[in-house]
Amino acid sequence: MSFDFVFEVTASDPHSAARCGRFHTPHGVIPTPVFAPVGTQATVKTLTPHELEALGADLILANTYHLYLRPGAEIIARLGGLHRFMGWEHPILTDSGGFQVFSLAHMRRLDDDGVTFRSHIDGSEQRLTPERVIEIEEQLGADIIMCLDECADPLDRHVLVQALRRTHLWAERCRAAQQRGDQALFGILQGGIFPDLRRESARFLTALDFPGYAIGGLAVGETKEQMYATLEVTTPELPADRPRYLMGVGTPEDILESVARGVDIFDCALPTRVARNGGLLTQGGRLNIRNAQYADDPLPIEADCTCYACQHFSRAYLRHLFQAGEILGLRLATLHNLHFMLRFMEQVRAAIAAGTFTQFKAEFLAGYQISDQDVRFARYAARRAERSEQRPPRRAQP
Amino acid sequence: MSFDFVFEVTASDPHSAARCGRFHTPHGVIPTPVFAPVGTQATVKTLTPHELEALGADLILANTYHLYLRPGAEIIARLGGLHRFMGWEHPILTDSGGFQVFSLAHMRRLDDDGVTFRSHIDGSEQRLTPERVIEIEEQLGADIIMCLDECADPLDRHVLVQALRRTHLWAERCRAAQQRGDQALFGILQGGIFPDLRRESARFLTALDFPGYAIGGLAVGETKEQMYATLEVTTPELPADRPRYLMGVGTPEDILESVARGVDIFDCALPTRVARNGGLLTQGGRLNIRNAQYADDPLPIEADCTCYACQHFSRAYLRHLFQAGEILGLRLATLHNLHFMLRFMEQVRAAIAAGTFTQFKAEFLAGYQISDQDVRFARYAARRAERSEQRPPRRAQP
Repeated sequence: MSFDFVFEVTASDPHSAARCGRFHTPHGVIPTPVFAPVGTQATVKTLTPHELEALGADLILANTYHLYLRPGAEIIARLGGLHRFMGWEHPILTDSGGFQVFSLAHMRRLDDDGVTFRSHIDGSEQRLTPERVIEIEEQLGADIIMCLDECADPLDRHVLVQALRRTHLWAERCRAAQQRGDQALFGILQGGIFPDLRRESARFLTALDFPGYAIGGLAVGETKEQMYATLEVTTPELPADRPRYLMGVGTPEDILESVARGVDIFDCALPTRVARNGGLLTQGGRLNIRNAQYADDPLPIEADCTCYACQHFSRAYLRHLFQAGEILGLRLATLHNLHFMLRFMEQVRAAIAAGTFTQFKAEFLAGYQISDQDVRFARYAARRAERSEQRPPRRAQP
Repeated sequence: MSFDFVFEVTASDPHSAARCGRFHTPHGVIPTPVFAPVGTQATVKTLTPHELEALGADLILANTYHLYLRPGAEIIARLGGLHRFMGWEHPILTDSGGFQVFSLAHMRRLDDDGVTFRSHIDGSEQRLTPERVIEIEEQLGADIIMCLDECADPLDRHVLVQALRRTHLWAERCRAAQQRGDQALFGILQGGIFPDLRRESARFLTALDFPGYAIGGLAVGETKEQMYATLEVTTPELPADRPRYLMGVGTPEDILESVARGVDIFDCALPTRVARNGGLLTQGGRLNIRNAQYADDPLPIEADCTCYACQHFSRAYLRHLFQAGEILGLRLATLHNLHFMLRFMEQVRAAIAAGTFTQFKAEFLAGYQISDQDVRFARYAARRAERSEQRPPRRAQP
């Protein structure tokens, strides 16, 4: 079965590189720019797939590394693939697992052929090669799948040159290993903050003619200014008729700056992760619902928000749920934050289509207060948070 | 505002004391026999009020002790009362907090006037008297409220006699303290497993003419046979035109045996608590979804179950969620178990109305395998579980 992964550009902003598009996949058309909620373990934490659908999510991300280790790609394949397994019949993107191997696994040993590591779950030794990663991603069956790449320190040129060589080698092998025709395999650019390396990566990968391109190795330690500058030199090197995916980004302000530089696809665990810590996204910035000032506040999180949490509950009740450690608090906060992000992306698309994106961006940023807690390097922080969330191995019960 | 708390008996089983009824409250009519899911901290754990509504819950219980300590009854009153606070516009029952004081709080000192204890949350010293308990329950504003009572060892006659005297004294004071006319205050019978004490308690409390009566002090350490025998001598002493509430019970088999002995109202944390541990209720008994045998099982929990979990997900997916520690697993298991209990109560009511309750009971018990894990003394176990769940004090953030 072969699928034609067409990307139509439907509108372009006259004052920036921002654009609207439609990416066709076997499980539906993804309007871009799009934000993909993160469902690491085949569930966007706390939510049902039907809630995600009602929120208007067009694409979700699942993590190959986690699902490969638990429950295992073979089990998911036997149960009909990831869509059926988790009850989500809309587009899914799986990463390659490489980023998680570098950040979560123990004792990794890297060579040109692949990477050996120990599982963070049970300490077992595992081996991933480009071919094995594609095999796993084909078992999972997502609509968009990623090549295995090597993500290195974005400021260390010496290391980056090595990583780039290996990333390109692996991209070729992933391309060659692909057997299913109904999955869009994206190449991943590396090269840190160095324009010549990014250009080299773009040239090498576009020659392989992928249906889409990811920009990897950003938001992992460089400044925001370095990230934006890197996008500026990278996106012009990519073909206009293929979607561009900035991995692990981001916050509303990072999304606006990246859309302005021609990025189409985003994913980030931040909105759902900060929700579970009581951080709620609003037009004015982030609100911490645990603060004592909300103890008897009868107002909703945001007066004009149409999400389920804001339509039915007060800040006082939400604060109570968080103080009492109740799961409903995590659910309502997650619902609100994803509602915020998905409405925000709708506004971004509408503004581009109307030719008013630059104005929308300026007005949004003028009202949105970026707190110190707003993670400057979201993916780097996410990686650290994931590390600290790892649990000791749990044994299956008899 | 005064409300007429009518209890209509609509059907009586010819072969037992089982009966169907309708209890009228300000927030709607409760069909009996009824099972009330437990929403200790103003939330039935993991669920929204709209999910509870969709499940067909007719009554929920909230715990006065927990809400008094956090967020505080004054805050809930200021926000319009418990119904509005938690977004549940159907009947609510609050206990008196006495049982939790005896089981959860530290350093309790009991005297005829009331009880002094330390909060399990912050260690602060607190004092509850019958009058204060009624004041708190009036601030919370539930439809059914309970007198402060003293729950003692059901087998220790010497202690029980003392506790009974105090329970009756406090019932009189609670009755006198009540100011709102739109809450049904129930008296609570004590007397352990001793028929003469139970009869004395029934006579004393019915003389006070409560709109309903609770049977307290059971399922806290006696055998099932002792509990059933006690019910047999107690319910005939209670007026037929008032609902009878067996506190903290129970499992399907305990509910069947108690309904057969004339009980109308039940509450129990067990179905929701075991759900969060992966224990799923089925017609055949309890299933532990963590078991390895379900790792690639494509079937739903129960083939003919119409709950959301069974309609959309496999046992394999549910097991994966539990193994991965995902909140969606707790939600789906809770939904299933409450769906099971509420459908079970519908079947009980239908059987009584059809005159086939005894047959239904026999058939159900023949198919339902009671595992060792099915708690014989549900409330006793619940108390221990609650103790072990207590967290260290958490300070409010600035």
